[in-house]
Amino acid sequence: MPKTDRAAPLTALRALLKKEELDGLIVPRSDEYLGEYVPPCAERLAWITGFTGSAGLAVILAERAAVFSDGRYITQMDDQVDGALWDRLHISDTPPKAWLSDHAPEGARIGYDPRVISQTALDALDAPGIMLVPTGFDLIDAIWTDRPAPPSAPAQVHPLEFAGESSEAKRTALAAKLAETGQDAAILADTTSIAWLLNIRGTDVPCTPVVLSYAILHADGRVDLFVNPQKITPDVRAWLGVAVTVQAPDALESALKALGGKTVRIDPAATPVWFAQVLEAAGATLVEAADPCVLPRARKNHVEQEGARAAHLRDAVAVCRFLHWLDENAATSTELDLVEQLRAFRAEAPEYREDSFDTISGAGPNGAIIHYRVTPETNRSVGTDTVYLVDSGAQYPDGTTDITRTIWTGPGEPPAEVTDAFTRVLKGNLLLGRTVFPSGTSGSALDALARYALWQGGLDFDHGTGHGVGSYLSVHEGPQRISKVPNRVSLEPGMILSNEPGYYRPGAFGIRLETLLLVTATDVGKDGRNFFAFETLTLAPFDRRLVDVRLLGPEAAEFLDSYHAQVLKKVGPLLPEDARKWLAHACSPINRK
Amino acid sequence: MPKTDRAAPLTALRALLKKEELDGLIVPRSDEYLGEYVPPCAERLAWITGFTGSAGLAVILAERAAVFSDGRYITQMDDQVDGALWDRLHISDTPPKAWLSDHAPEGARIGYDPRVISQTALDALDAPGIMLVPTGFDLIDAIWTDRPAPPSAPAQVHPLEFAGESSEAKRTALAAKLAETGQDAAILADTTSIAWLLNIRGTDVPCTPVVLSYAILHADGRVDLFVNPQKITPDVRAWLGVAVTVQAPDALESALKALGGKTVRIDPAATPVWFAQVLEAAGATLVEAADPCVLPRARKNHVEQEGARAAHLRDAVAVCRFLHWLDENAATSTELDLVEQLRAFRAEAPEYREDSFDTISGAGPNGAIIHYRVTPETNRSVGTDTVYLVDSGAQYPDGTTDITRTIWTGPGEPPAEVTDAFTRVLKGNLLLGRTVFPSGTSGSALDALARYALWQGGLDFDHGTGHGVGSYLSVHEGPQRISKVPNRVSLEPGMILSNEPGYYRPGAFGIRLETLLLVTATDVGKDGRNFFAFETLTLAPFDRRLVDVRLLGPEAAEFLDSYHAQVLKKVGPLLPEDARKWLAHACSPINRK
Repeated sequence: MPKTDRAAPLTALRALLKKEELDGLIVPRSDEYLGEYVPPCAERLAWITGFTGSAGLAVILAERAAVFSDGRYITQMDDQVDGALWDRLHISDTPPKAWLSDHAPEGARIGYDPRVISQTALDALDAPGIMLVPTGFDLIDAIWTDRPAPPSAPAQVHPLEFAGESSEAKRTALAAKLAETGQDAAILADTTSIAWLLNIRGTDVPCTPVVLSYAILHADGRVDLFVNPQKITPDVRAWLGVAVTVQAPDALESALKALGGKTVRIDPAATPVWFAQVLEAAGATLVEAADPCVLPRARKNHVEQEGARAAHLRDAVAVCRFLHWLDENAATSTELDLVEQLRAFRAEAPEYREDSFDTISGAGPNGAIIHYRVTPETNRSVGTDTVYLVDSGAQYPDGTTDITRTIWTGPGEPPAEVTDAFTRVLKGNLLLGRTVFPSGTSGSALDALARYALWQGGLDFDHGTGHGVGSYLSVHEGPQRISKVPNRVSLEPGMILSNEPGYYRPGAFGIRLETLLLVTATDVGKDGRNFFAFETLTLAPFDRRLVDVRLLGPEAAEFLDSYHAQVLKKVGPLLPEDARKWLAHACSPINRK
Repeated sequence: MPKTDRAAPLTALRALLKKEELDGLIVPRSDEYLGEYVPPCAERLAWITGFTGSAGLAVILAERAAVFSDGRYITQMDDQVDGALWDRLHISDTPPKAWLSDHAPEGARIGYDPRVISQTALDALDAPGIMLVPTGFDLIDAIWTDRPAPPSAPAQVHPLEFAGESSEAKRTALAAKLAETGQDAAILADTTSIAWLLNIRGTDVPCTPVVLSYAILHADGRVDLFVNPQKITPDVRAWLGVAVTVQAPDALESALKALGGKTVRIDPAATPVWFAQVLEAAGATLVEAADPCVLPRARKNHVEQEGARAAHLRDAVAVCRFLHWLDENAATSTELDLVEQLRAFRAEAPEYREDSFDTISGAGPNGAIIHYRVTPETNRSVGTDTVYLVDSGAQYPDGTTDITRTIWTGPGEPPAEVTDAFTRVLKGNLLLGRTVFPSGTSGSALDALARYALWQGGLDFDHGTGHGVGSYLSVHEGPQRISKVPNRVSLEPGMILSNEPGYYRPGAFGIRLETLLLVTATDVGKDGRNFFAFETLTLAPFDRRLVDVRLLGPEAAEFLDSYHAQVLKKVGPLLPEDARKWLAHACSPINRK
């Protein structure tokens, strides 16, 4: 959409602001469910600014307006947003709060829709001298004439063969914990928590199979589910059971008011601030705590663990076929071709539902852009003697995958700076993936293992080492993570995390090697200590052409050979003849390189 | 002192409680300065309970009383405290707050002296249904008839040749930061901060050369120092300069009241709660933040760094002579003999002032007691074929040392379980000590490097890996540390930390290997990254007899040999002939073991 199309909405919005006696408006990228993906009807930030990135915020004043995003999106923001209408700003360099302080008049009344922003996000905007005013309706929606209809696809049953535990059992266990701590109810505003708790899935947004909905979990185990009733088919209605009442979203406000006088648990970072405002006005006592589904959702049960293994083996067949195909076709392919080819291999499995995120397919310098999404404008031919990075994943009913491999397309020898960095990244991935550790260890305590080899070369990477992964749910799931940022969540058996060290040389190449890890119990602990290990779920070879065997060293070489032997043993028998031969070579011992 | 002597003080205290209309009293171990060491006149916990451990708390009610300490002191508490008068409790198993809830009557008024407890410590005692009441005087002091006199030794000048930066420069820099953030003054209740800021030292408590005092740093650079004026000799008075006023401690209250209407920075964890109570009553605005001296004190300047090197070399001469002596005399020595012998070697240096903490000298099973302090009752003969652990340090005017070595006394071969654990501890010490890391890395991010080798054997240790160390100040100094516990303090050049992984088999043996590390700048960072390294200050060999060379592996062997070569080169020339020969053997390459 050309930039100039956005002048009219801005004019309309300013007229509405005047009528509502507001000096400005905050428009976040988030929607009513604060999730990673939003449906087209909730792309308010994109509609008012033109900017379609997945993170951002706009502030509109009477005379001036600004749109903010992070380093990933600066170029895209400049391309999409009209600089004559908007200041286009890096959110860390110029935080919205500072911009508001500089540009809003003293005592300004700045509106926000309390349904689409969390308390935590709102607190970050609370500049001295301005007043943040919740609006009674969404001002963007009021002027958005051609707004798409909200998604209305039916919810789906997530059967016990994949969920592993009945919703009733989950509800009963959580309700007992609420009752124990004197909490009468918990607000569930995270759609992945609701999907987990009620064993349902949906197709309302891309990549994450959730049903856009809210729920109230009561301390007696009952759940009120607020969702467009059209989505609830008779099958799903029966599946939810008698303890779950289904209500239309417009019944939510009175249900919250009915909690007046009760003690209600609410997560201020993951719930629109409107909930707390309504509850407080009704006289409820709020207990700020994480959504009670978060920890049990993270600890996958044995059925979910078996599902994850099956999903990863299935995914590995597609990835290995792709890597084989890539070896023969890279020179004549573009980044977009490879996205399609990889999806095609995955889609051959009947269990494939969709990608778990937009594939990152980056050749040469594009591989150095950490969150690169190829577009027709940026699409590069991969070509020969190129470092190619591909980060992708899929949703299957039994599990969610996420894998990154970095490939040398040949036929020449890779440069020493590439093999040096690749080998250090690989050593980090292997050292972390092969460690054992005592119970009580958090992901932040393990992070250095993935960086140690890079550090010794004076290198590092500027992203976390690992994120949690859901079970046929979000590919980015908390609370566990592996990161420099301090985190007190202990890793526990059943948790799934990514292990994805990298190295990026801007303008030249990017390397990332990602496997998913399942935390497992072990008997290695002595002195009565409980030790855990990681099982590597992901099964695809690392590119031996990029390994500097001497730098790898004997211990990491042993780890690598043992991993490759496992890949060959498990995936090989499921491949067509030619791909199997390719895999056998790709998995041969590194010292015979 | 026999247990029964403590009945009379308890009876007297209960009479006083009744008179003061209190239902109970909290008696912490801390004194007015909340430091690690307290002078005899402030050993209130010991006087009322009989318990002399360095951490603990008592709660006295009308009919019942309890004393609490941690796992280190359970045995000692049972020995020293009369079970007929006191419940003797593990502070983690039965927190004082829970005990108060169980035993204090509903609505009980529980007194505390606000001069000897921090806000943070007080908050941890705030049980529902009881009222914590600050007392206008210390009730223990009121009944303590034979209370020792407070220390009155003179303060000492800490000259520029050791301090490296004038007090005026320090005060000016900190005052500018206060002014920048709109703070009118900062309360300094940490005696090590005052010693650092004013470049003075003292002998008021053992092991930490501080002057018991308080200070107020004003945003114009002036300091009010509250201290017994007898301690301030004319030389020290001149050294302090005109911007520092010296006042008697009883002038403090009116000085705090004079801050009414001002913005005052105060550290709620490191300041007696009385300060905040007086300031708030006077109408001051309190800003809760760490004492502003903490970070600059931790970043040793170049003179302090040179001082640390000189102090460690001097200390190494004593330690290497001791280790040589030990090899020839262990079989006929007791733990206490060795404490004395080590002190005697150190005391030969004219710069030796005192030990920086009570030496831990543990043979066999005593080595497994992490905070072991040998007494005549626990004193063991070391004997042959014993694992002996010695953790000690000294105060010199140019630096503070802290070193642990673990020795096999022979003549037999050490058991495999000992060499296995020793080698893993050594690998952890070497891996951490030799790593490089990017700026912005905290000690908690590095902790796993010290544990990795132990973890692979199913082993671990239950203490932090490293604490900060002062410059002729406290051997335990924040804010930096290396620990599993999340910590956001970035390591910066000039900081000194201990590196002390260990392994303890209760009832059998203990291993700990400790070196002090200085954070240094490097040029190894690529891509414009700033990387730091550690310089190992401590110079004494690790016992080669306890190394399993195969388990050590080639990389760690190279680190060990390189460290030993450096020890020999630096310390060897300073040793007498026979010790030099011993050191040359102790430092020979590990593969020639």
